[in-house]
Amino acid sequence: MRNVLSHVLRMGLPGGDMENVQKYIEANKQNFVNDLIELLKYPSISADPAYAQDVINCAEHVKSKFESLGLKAEVHKTAGHPIVYAEYSQPENKRTLLIYGHYDVQPVDPLELWNKPPFEPHIEGDTIYARGATDDKGQFLIHLLAVEAYLKSGTKLPVNLKFLIEGEEETASDNLEIFIKDNHDKLKADGVVVSDTAMYAKSIPAITYGLRGIAAAEIKVTGPNRDLHSGSFGGAVANPVTELARIIARFHDKDYRVQIDGFYDDVRDLEKWEQEMFASLPYDDKEFLQSTGSIAVSGEKGFTSLERKWARPTCEINGIYGGYQGEGGKTIIPSWAGTKVTMRLVPEQDPDDILDKFEAFVKKITSPGVTVEIIKQGGARPAIVERNNFMVTGSVIALEKGFGTKPVFIREGGSIPIVNVFRQELGLDTLLLGFGQHDDNAHSPNEKFSLSDFHKGIITVMHLFQELQ
Amino acid sequence: MRNVLSHVLRMGLPGGDMENVQKYIEANKQNFVNDLIELLKYPSISADPAYAQDVINCAEHVKSKFESLGLKAEVHKTAGHPIVYAEYSQPENKRTLLIYGHYDVQPVDPLELWNKPPFEPHIEGDTIYARGATDDKGQFLIHLLAVEAYLKSGTKLPVNLKFLIEGEEETASDNLEIFIKDNHDKLKADGVVVSDTAMYAKSIPAITYGLRGIAAAEIKVTGPNRDLHSGSFGGAVANPVTELARIIARFHDKDYRVQIDGFYDDVRDLEKWEQEMFASLPYDDKEFLQSTGSIAVSGEKGFTSLERKWARPTCEINGIYGGYQGEGGKTIIPSWAGTKVTMRLVPEQDPDDILDKFEAFVKKITSPGVTVEIIKQGGARPAIVERNNFMVTGSVIALEKGFGTKPVFIREGGSIPIVNVFRQELGLDTLLLGFGQHDDNAHSPNEKFSLSDFHKGIITVMHLFQELQ
Repeated sequence: MRNVLSHVLRMGLPGGDMENVQKYIEANKQNFVNDLIELLKYPSISADPAYAQDVINCAEHVKSKFESLGLKAEVHKTAGHPIVYAEYSQPENKRTLLIYGHYDVQPVDPLELWNKPPFEPHIEGDTIYARGATDDKGQFLIHLLAVEAYLKSGTKLPVNLKFLIEGEEETASDNLEIFIKDNHDKLKADGVVVSDTAMYAKSIPAITYGLRGIAAAEIKVTGPNRDLHSGSFGGAVANPVTELARIIARFHDKDYRVQIDGFYDDVRDLEKWEQEMFASLPYDDKEFLQSTGSIAVSGEKGFTSLERKWARPTCEINGIYGGYQGEGGKTIIPSWAGTKVTMRLVPEQDPDDILDKFEAFVKKITSPGVTVEIIKQGGARPAIVERNNFMVTGSVIALEKGFGTKPVFIREGGSIPIVNVFRQELGLDTLLLGFGQHDDNAHSPNEKFSLSDFHKGIITVMHLFQELQ
Repeated sequence: MRNVLSHVLRMGLPGGDMENVQKYIEANKQNFVNDLIELLKYPSISADPAYAQDVINCAEHVKSKFESLGLKAEVHKTAGHPIVYAEYSQPENKRTLLIYGHYDVQPVDPLELWNKPPFEPHIEGDTIYARGATDDKGQFLIHLLAVEAYLKSGTKLPVNLKFLIEGEEETASDNLEIFIKDNHDKLKADGVVVSDTAMYAKSIPAITYGLRGIAAAEIKVTGPNRDLHSGSFGGAVANPVTELARIIARFHDKDYRVQIDGFYDDVRDLEKWEQEMFASLPYDDKEFLQSTGSIAVSGEKGFTSLERKWARPTCEINGIYGGYQGEGGKTIIPSWAGTKVTMRLVPEQDPDDILDKFEAFVKKITSPGVTVEIIKQGGARPAIVERNNFMVTGSVIALEKGFGTKPVFIREGGSIPIVNVFRQELGLDTLLLGFGQHDDNAHSPNEKFSLSDFHKGIITVMHLFQELQ
C-alpha cells in the first residue's frame, strides 16, 4: 500500500484562482465559525419525536445556506425527517462528486453532565462545544464552506457537486435509503465523499478504509402480569430482571468471545499488512484509558485494543431497564424488564443473518419461567472501501496540503450504514475523510470540535475539488 | 400442634355487654367504610420525599380518630415521618395489648396501570380499591373500630390498649425502632398484636407464625467516565451493564440456589410437621400462576412453591437501570449501571451477616474492567412466633367466632421487621392476625381489600379483646 500512496504524493501550492479561494477562506475564518454556531443552535434530535419541528427547521436552515451560495436546493419530505438536496453543475466539468452528511444529532441525555446547554454553542480556546459539533454538523459544513470559498471568490468549481444532507443518520437512515433507491439518475456521480469520521489523532489526518456494520435489537422479558410483592411471592416465580441478566451474561464467555451460535462464521480475519499497520500507529492503552476513564482495557482475548475497536465484532448493551428506579426502595418482583442491544459487525457479517442468529440464541437460552420478545431493528453491513481509486489517491494529496502531513490509513469502529447503500444502489465507492477526533464526545455530553481542524478541513476540501477534477 | 389448639377451642356467643358491641358494629357498617375511605385518601408515601406533608397530614388524621373515641393520642415527631401513639387504660384490667400498624404506603408507580387514581378510593361490589387498602390502613383501622364499638356502645374494654401506628414501615421503620428503644416503660405490655398479613385464602383465616426477614442493597457499576460511542470504543472497554448482568447472573445457579458464599449457613431446615402442614393446605400451582400471570413456577430445586415463598431465602432484583431507556436507540457504552436487590431471609439468617457475605461475593466476582460500589441498606431478622402463648390460643377462638371457621397456621414470605424489635427491645411476642388476601396487590397497582373481611375483622377483634383479658 505504501507504493500505491508514494507515487501519488506530488506536492503543489495553489496558484491563480486557487489563491483567491484560499484568501477568501482566510478572510472569512470568523464568518465560517459564525455559520457553524448558527447551525449548532438547532436541537435536531432525530430519535425523539418531541424535536420533530426542530429537525424540520434545521433542514430549512441548511437549504437556505445552499441557496445563499447560488446552488439549487430543496427540502425533500419523507415519511420521517426531511432530506436536504443541492446541486452545482457546469457542463465542462468531467466529474461529479456526491457529498453526504447529516444534520440530525444524537439525544443529549444525561443533560446534567453537560457543562453548558448542548444547543448553545460555546467556544473555549480552539474548541467549540455543542451537540452535533463533530457529528456531523461541523464536518458536513466544511464542504459547503469550501464551495462558498470558490463561488464567492468568483472561482469556478472544477467538479460538479451533489449534496445529500439527511436528518435520520442517528436513527436508521431508512428514508434516505428510499430516496436513493427512487433517485438513481438524479444521484448519478463518480464517487461519494463523507466527512463523518475522525482523524487518527490530533495532527494526524487519516483516510478511513473500513467501517464496522451494525445490527440492533431490543429484548423484552415478561414475568408476572404486574409487579409482585417480593416477600409474598419471592422465590416461587421467575424474576424478569434476573432472567434478562442471565441472558445478557451468556452473550460473552470469560474471554469476551461472543457466544451467539455462528456469530463469527463470516468474520474475515485481519490481513498481515493490516495487523502491521495497526501495530505501527502511535497508540497507548494508558492514554486510551485516561481518555475514557475506564480502569482497564477489556475485550476479546487475543486481540489488541485497536483490533478490537476496528476489526472485531461486538455485542454491546446500550441500555437496560426494569422495576423500580426511583428514590429509596420498592420490594417488588418487577413484571418485566428490557434491554437495548447493538452488535457491531465486521466484513463479511450480514446484519439480517446476525439478527436471526441473535434471536435464535436468546430464545434458546431464555428460562421457561418468563416470556421473551425480541424486536429486530435492522442494521447495516460493514464496509471496506477501495484504497487505490481516484478519490483515495486525490485525498492523500489534499490532506497533506491541508494539514501539512501525510495521512495514515485506518479503520473506524463506528458504522455509516449509508456507505453500503451507495455501494449497492449507486455502485459508488465512498471516501471517508474525517476531521473529528475520537475524544470529541460524539454521542456523549460536551460534544466538541476543533476550530483549527474545521479551518484546515475547509482548505483540504478546497484542494480535494482540484485533485478530483 | 393440633392438640395444643383443640383444647382451647371452646365456643361461645357474645352475651350482655358484648351484644351491644356487636349491635353497634352491625349498625355502623357503612360509617366504618366511610372511615376507611377518608383514611385511604391520604397519599402517605413514605419512600418519596415529595409526599412528606401528606404523610404528616395522615398522621394527624389518625390522631384525631383516636381522640374522637376518647383515647389520649399524640403525634410523635421523629427524624423521619411521625408516629401516632394512643392509649386506653382502666386500673382493673389485668392485661395490656400493644397494637401496631402503619399508616404509610408504598409508592404507586407504574401509575398508568391503575384503573382508578390510587388515592381516590373506589368500591366495586365487596371490594375497595386504593393504595394502602390492605397494606396497612384497612387492617390497622379494624382495631380502632373495634375499640369504637366498645366505647361508643358504652361498654368497658376488658383489656388495656396501647396503639403504635407508624409512618415508615415501607422504608425501614428506623425511627420507630428509636422510639421503642427510648420508651421501654411507656410501651410495657403483655403482647403485641399486628394485622399486616394475609389470611390463608378467602374464608380461611390464619395465624401467621413465621415471617421472612430482609436485607437490602444497591449495586452500582461504573465503567468509562461518560457514555462512549459504542462504535468507536466498543469491544475495547468493559460495558457496565454487561458486567452488572454478569454479576446478577451469578447470584443463582441453574437450580436457582443462591450462590453467595455462606448464604445458607444459618438456614434452619423445615421441621417435619411444617412440611406436612404446608402440604395439607389447599394449594394449586395452576391457580397461583393464574393469579400472578407467570407462565411457570420457578425457584429453588427440591422445594414446593409454599416452601419457597414461606421458608426459603431469596436474592431478588427489585429494579435495574443503566444507559439509554428512551424512545428509539442510542449507540452508547453506558458510563454506569445500577440495581436494587433485596434478599428475603429465614430463621436464623442475620441481615448484617448476609449483607457482608453479599458484598464480599459481589466484589469477588466483579470484572477488573469496572469499579463496583455496594450500598448496604440494612434489613430485618426473620421471625418465628410462639404458637402456644395466650394471644395465639385466644385468637384461634376469636377468629373462629369472627369468620365461622377454624384458622390454619401458616408462614408469610414478607417481612415485618418491627416484630423483631418488639422481641429484642420489649421482650414481647407478636400475634400476626392478618385480614388481607395474597392477591390484594399490596405493592402493585390496583391494591384492594375485601369489605366483608374488614367487617369480620372488626368482629374478630371485638372477641379477641374478650379472650385476651
